[in-house]
Amino acid sequence: MLSKARIKLIHSLALKKKRSELTLFVVEGKKQVAELLTSNLEITCLVATQQWVDEYNHQISNHIELITVSEDELKKVSQQQAPQQVLAVVKMPEPDTNTLQSALKNEFVLMLDGIQDPGNLGTIIRIADWYGITHIVCSHDCVDVFNPKTIQATMGSFMRISVWYDNLQTLLNEVETPVYGAVMNGTSLYQTQIEKQGILIIGNEGKGISDSIMPFITHHLTIPLVGQAESLNAGIATAIICDARARALSN
Amino acid sequence: MLSKARIKLIHSLALKKKRSELTLFVVEGKKQVAELLTSNLEITCLVATQQWVDEYNHQISNHIELITVSEDELKKVSQQQAPQQVLAVVKMPEPDTNTLQSALKNEFVLMLDGIQDPGNLGTIIRIADWYGITHIVCSHDCVDVFNPKTIQATMGSFMRISVWYDNLQTLLNEVETPVYGAVMNGTSLYQTQIEKQGILIIGNEGKGISDSIMPFITHHLTIPLVGQAESLNAGIATAIICDARARALSN
Repeated sequence: MLSKARIKLIHSLALKKKRSELTLFVVEGKKQVAELLTSNLEITCLVATQQWVDEYNHQISNHIELITVSEDELKKVSQQQAPQQVLAVVKMPEPDTNTLQSALKNEFVLMLDGIQDPGNLGTIIRIADWYGITHIVCSHDCVDVFNPKTIQATMGSFMRISVWYDNLQTLLNEVETPVYGAVMNGTSLYQTQIEKQGILIIGNEGKGISDSIMPFITHHLTIPLVGQAESLNAGIATAIICDARARALSN
Repeated sequence: MLSKARIKLIHSLALKKKRSELTLFVVEGKKQVAELLTSNLEITCLVATQQWVDEYNHQISNHIELITVSEDELKKVSQQQAPQQVLAVVKMPEPDTNTLQSALKNEFVLMLDGIQDPGNLGTIIRIADWYGITHIVCSHDCVDVFNPKTIQATMGSFMRISVWYDNLQTLLNEVETPVYGAVMNGTSLYQTQIEKQGILIIGNEGKGISDSIMPFITHHLTIPLVGQAESLNAGIATAIICDARARALSN
């Protein structure tokens, strides 16, 4: 049975302000919550139907508060049109700054400059996870990674990828690896070798990469246009460039 | 001023049944409607704010009924959270079967097998338009191309791409060009040369390509996984494969 206070708490986590204040966020759906149970993330509370509880009971630690509800009750707290058996309230992980510094030196890192759409951010996290890119840095004006739509769109990948919010300019000032930027009039992607280590900057859906970030780009990449579309979605552009890098590294 | 009957009509076009019955659909937003005005599609009615009318007045043919409304009135008929000045009711184009037959022989055609998400279909249309692929065939159980969310996600590309609904098996029976399918355990995309002419089959978001379609595939393509994500979104997979073809053709 869900108390009114609990319903209010879960609803409030739809807002970024409340999420930051309580350092909690919501994960929904059978598949994502099943993955959560085996992850390092701390679940503070599970709201689930009897059907789910019967199936996952043996996997639920005693430390987790479990509230069994009817499907109608679940609907009351869910943000999904068709809730899938379970909702988890999860503690936000605390990022370790040292990992980021090391990743910026030794790995391939995505930097997102003003990505606004929660679905796009979620898709980009899923793409990073496909291509083995484990660090993403978002500018402060990007949408929140703990937005329920973002979490949903990651399809579980948010558990494997570290997402940071930071000042991109400050970080780029220190970077010594190649800095790739997806732009409209750069060099063809097909003529550029993307290195194993480096940074890929993806700009805002409408405005692209900000003027203040442009000077840091060492390789201006353009996905050659064959037809007539005006642009590609930010997630699609990210995927194509990450795939080009994976292709080059596979040789 | 919008009559009650008109409001009812526009609302009803959110439903596929009504759209098919009336052979009408809705296009929203300043940018898409501006493109519509210069396209061959027949606009039956424009619902627009005074601001939009002032800007586009000289481009509106006398044959089009124009209803000037307040922003609040526009909100009443719009499906958008933040309507952008204008909404058009548009006549569905009549597809020409001869074009499809010729495209299946001489061009590169996308076949979508059970794509359910309207946003995914819209994104795939936009990707096709980027890569100069002008024909898409959908299985009968795909989402409707005239779904408002699909139209919105195409970002105008629906005006340049012909989308057909047909029995994929029947069509594939006649095809003589290579048939590529995006699958989980096929040959690496990086080891396959995608030809200029052919068919690319993209399966349902959850279930992939149907068993009845599988035997027609001559080239089983897999985008190599580097990290740990379980799958890639259907739109992302389409984009990566279309890009691989464009890359090969650019050499």
